[in-house]
Amino acid sequence: MRRLLLLSSSKEGNSGYLETAKRPIEEFLAAHQVSANDEVLFVPFAGVNINYDDYFDLVTAALADIPVRLTALHRASDPAAAIKKSKAILVGGGNTFHLLHQLYQFDFFGLIREAVLAGKPYIGWSAGSNIASPSIKTTNDMPIVQPPSFHALQLIPFQINPHYLDQHPKGFNGETREQRLQEFMQVNPDAVVVGLPEGTALKVIDNRVEILGEQPVMLFRNQQKEVASTEALNHLLELDEAMP
Amino acid sequence: MRRLLLLSSSKEGNSGYLETAKRPIEEFLAAHQVSANDEVLFVPFAGVNINYDDYFDLVTAALADIPVRLTALHRASDPAAAIKKSKAILVGGGNTFHLLHQLYQFDFFGLIREAVLAGKPYIGWSAGSNIASPSIKTTNDMPIVQPPSFHALQLIPFQINPHYLDQHPKGFNGETREQRLQEFMQVNPDAVVVGLPEGTALKVIDNRVEILGEQPVMLFRNQQKEVASTEALNHLLELDEAMP
Repeated sequence: MRRLLLLSSSKEGNSGYLETAKRPIEEFLAAHQVSANDEVLFVPFAGVNINYDDYFDLVTAALADIPVRLTALHRASDPAAAIKKSKAILVGGGNTFHLLHQLYQFDFFGLIREAVLAGKPYIGWSAGSNIASPSIKTTNDMPIVQPPSFHALQLIPFQINPHYLDQHPKGFNGETREQRLQEFMQVNPDAVVVGLPEGTALKVIDNRVEILGEQPVMLFRNQQKEVASTEALNHLLELDEAMP
Repeated sequence: MRRLLLLSSSKEGNSGYLETAKRPIEEFLAAHQVSANDEVLFVPFAGVNINYDDYFDLVTAALADIPVRLTALHRASDPAAAIKKSKAILVGGGNTFHLLHQLYQFDFFGLIREAVLAGKPYIGWSAGSNIASPSIKTTNDMPIVQPPSFHALQLIPFQINPHYLDQHPKGFNGETREQRLQEFMQVNPDAVVVGLPEGTALKVIDNRVEILGEQPVMLFRNQQKEVASTEALNHLLELDEAMP
């Protein structure tokens, strides 16, 4: 079982913080009967330049209209119980290496994975979406800390590349996003990558996906790039042997 | 002992491949009496979208004017002997994770480090400069493969950020380079980072540095950013306890 809302980013263009993400989050929670004063657990561990309390306040303020009760994993006196009793899990963006490192460090990795694969709704954006992939090998982030492994939650059978874009600073000779993803495919020839431009998201219910947003979502596999179709992603989800 | 030429990149602006790097490489080799038909060993392991033979040919063609004999580590029948007998080591750019992974994989890490700290001239650009740092935690590259460790050659006591730039695609909400480096400093408060814009390089002879290039090289430490001075870098090199 899986109920996932995987957003590319907290912002789109010049929008306010979680402004465009708020509506899909609200609808996703309502569709899964998370409402009224139900507890939604925020995971702040991708935050590095912002402390966890400030990060929690920022998200709480941005989602104030949604009638749920946000709690924060870093404040829980019994984190395992907090993960269990929450009605949904919300994982914010920041640095993917830091997020995954902390999940391993505090032994939250298995608890969260188990809860989500048992049906607990999971919402992530940016780094929070990245770790729903089999690994963090398609993150755009700087490896500021070494996690024990690049293996991630593997809630889906393909890699996500959040903040996907085709643009490149002029006159800059570092690798383009395209080249980086080609490198990934070269070294990981069986893997599939979904490039999520800002403002887009994937909603995954068991083996069915819905693509949200205006911009085309891109699918990379076999060194090819195409616009991702619902059918192609559904097929990948159906083939997912990791699913219980 | 150390004799290092650490270049930001293989290109600057719209220049040809190694066009602007060629002259400093030639002068550096000549200054260390590497000349005539002396063997310079090229390490191609950062190459991912290009195969090692093609990469070697590309570099050989670009440096054809320099009167040395380029050989390639991936072609050596006895790699350990090839590292030992070469008069200098040349490490090209590409993917830093891949480069470091291969150095560990084939047990070249210790051989190269030992040879360079015994005085063998080392030239790197991009990923090749990055791995001269204590770790690869300030690379811009995608973590397409997991090396056994982020620990790098530690030929210098500070981190390099190659292709350093202050620019950012418009309307893009991923972390800026500045934010990424601030994250690094947050998690690694004692570390120092040198941001090398394209076209710049550091020449390090024992505890003395020379800054090459037109653009200012930036120094990040204690959450501050300043233009790097020769004096500041010399001081860091003098304090380097890792040096034999």
